[in-house]
Amino acid sequence: MNASEFGPLLVSYDDVAGAARRIQGRAHRTPVLTSETVNKRTGADVFFKCENFQRMGAFKFRGAYNALSQLLPEEKKRGVLAYSSGNHAQAVALAGRLLDIKPVIVMPMDAPQVKVEATKGYGAEVVLYDKHKEDRDAFARKLAGERGLAVIPPFDHPHVVAGQGTAAKELFEEVGKLDYLLVCCGGGGLLSGCAIAAHALSPECKAIGVEPALGDDATRSFKTRTLQSCHNPETIADGARTHSMGKVTFPLVMAYVHDMLTVDDPELLRTMFWLWERMKIVVEPTGALAATALLEGKLSAKGARVGVIISGGNIDLRWAAQQRLASR
Amino acid sequence: MNASEFGPLLVSYDDVAGAARRIQGRAHRTPVLTSETVNKRTGADVFFKCENFQRMGAFKFRGAYNALSQLLPEEKKRGVLAYSSGNHAQAVALAGRLLDIKPVIVMPMDAPQVKVEATKGYGAEVVLYDKHKEDRDAFARKLAGERGLAVIPPFDHPHVVAGQGTAAKELFEEVGKLDYLLVCCGGGGLLSGCAIAAHALSPECKAIGVEPALGDDATRSFKTRTLQSCHNPETIADGARTHSMGKVTFPLVMAYVHDMLTVDDPELLRTMFWLWERMKIVVEPTGALAATALLEGKLSAKGARVGVIISGGNIDLRWAAQQRLASR
Repeated sequence: MNASEFGPLLVSYDDVAGAARRIQGRAHRTPVLTSETVNKRTGADVFFKCENFQRMGAFKFRGAYNALSQLLPEEKKRGVLAYSSGNHAQAVALAGRLLDIKPVIVMPMDAPQVKVEATKGYGAEVVLYDKHKEDRDAFARKLAGERGLAVIPPFDHPHVVAGQGTAAKELFEEVGKLDYLLVCCGGGGLLSGCAIAAHALSPECKAIGVEPALGDDATRSFKTRTLQSCHNPETIADGARTHSMGKVTFPLVMAYVHDMLTVDDPELLRTMFWLWERMKIVVEPTGALAATALLEGKLSAKGARVGVIISGGNIDLRWAAQQRLASR
Repeated sequence: MNASEFGPLLVSYDDVAGAARRIQGRAHRTPVLTSETVNKRTGADVFFKCENFQRMGAFKFRGAYNALSQLLPEEKKRGVLAYSSGNHAQAVALAGRLLDIKPVIVMPMDAPQVKVEATKGYGAEVVLYDKHKEDRDAFARKLAGERGLAVIPPFDHPHVVAGQGTAAKELFEEVGKLDYLLVCCGGGGLLSGCAIAAHALSPECKAIGVEPALGDDATRSFKTRTLQSCHNPETIADGARTHSMGKVTFPLVMAYVHDMLTVDDPELLRTMFWLWERMKIVVEPTGALAATALLEGKLSAKGARVGVIISGGNIDLRWAAQQRLASR
């Protein structure tokens, strides 16, 4: 295991390669799309790795499946717990069903009914808690302790990070070396995993994380070289509202990521709908972060070969319709 | 050339194969998507051929490019004319640009500015006419005559039909034999071309056309074995508002198509947004016709292998947002 001044580097490319073997045939090998319109607009050769076409609609399935499949037999028998009202919940639920491991998902009582139903639809038990009265972590830990469940964190776990890195591994295998790889950043699981893959498969490639300006804790952490946090940022990129990076992801991001960029919500929304309209793919706000940095010119990529991870496509169309009508 | 009681059969599979050679490297070989959710819902193995990812966003580019590339040198020098305010206009404009043939597109004065601009964006000259004072065909023929332009019809031309058939050819090459092939039907260009390919590459496959109930002229033509028409049907499937099939397509549909189905507009809208939400692809109303027949149970496909052509994805997101908010 390597160490850095920021902490141990708990994930290596071998772990990503191992994850790729585990998820093979269970996760989709998602398509890479290109667009002449995008190439013309940016002056770059751009390759979109479309994780919105991943099972359950986001890259999260990769890490969840990789983590669950490495539990010990007795852990598998007892079941797993995840707390999330987003894609991670559905990822753990689906991975649990496929691996015959009972998933328990902890969600706040006011989580949208549609998300509760979707998670139940994947076969999970949903346990609701009152977020005004109870601390989520304490509630989840207590429940996990009582039932002997293994907690699957959304990003700060080596097996989760290694799983997410398989998205970039597939991209490099399909398109070859790149100059830049743009990846959205919430807690840094996808970003660090992909940066590790980039470092191994395309050593000159600069992995760049993209955050919403309203939730720029990882960017500040990166620039100040000290872990920073933010509290419930009100960005529309709900997958990047994370409090801070973690003990696993922060050192990896410091070791393997070249730079961090931010985009504001209007830029994000504009790019998201542009991707819908011009590329014919449904992308959620968080899923459009990396593409926004490129298309809004935060990075000068003229003449470069650029990979962009489209991280997910799970969106409430009714909400999206309201946003679209409000936008002009 | 074969004849039938309905007229000569002007397109054979050889013409489709020839078109495939001509468009190779110019048209996209569009992806085939599958969905476990769809398979579970229908009990079938379903393969979506996604022409919404085709250049300019619809299958129309195939036929336009095949037709333009077969013009005589002197015709190419003089230029081409198409009348359309939809995908055919953009297809001819783009094919013209790629083949260095000047395209002139005739549109009604009240065509949406965004479509006029998009067509100009592909390098076409747009000529507007007053649809309340002038007959479109007469106007277009006069203009074509004055300037010596070759008229490229939207569907009723053997080269256009052969070009559209390449979509099904690619599908069979990728997924093998099928039991059913569902194809939307406006003027019958895509339908007849794809049915010819099905007949050659998967002889047991039943090609089925799908029309909007409000514009069911082809269905009535098929059932009565006599060419029928309808006048400006008010369906949201704007690509299937065609007056009637034509002299080229009607005999081909009668010879190669197994059956016709209709879906109503609420079914179409529901399925269209379901495809957006679950499959993460942006599909226009006409582009969702074939999928609607399957997903709304118009066809009993249990245990069958079913191909579905998603014909296009060009949609005004503002209009779509309004529809989505009005729908529930």
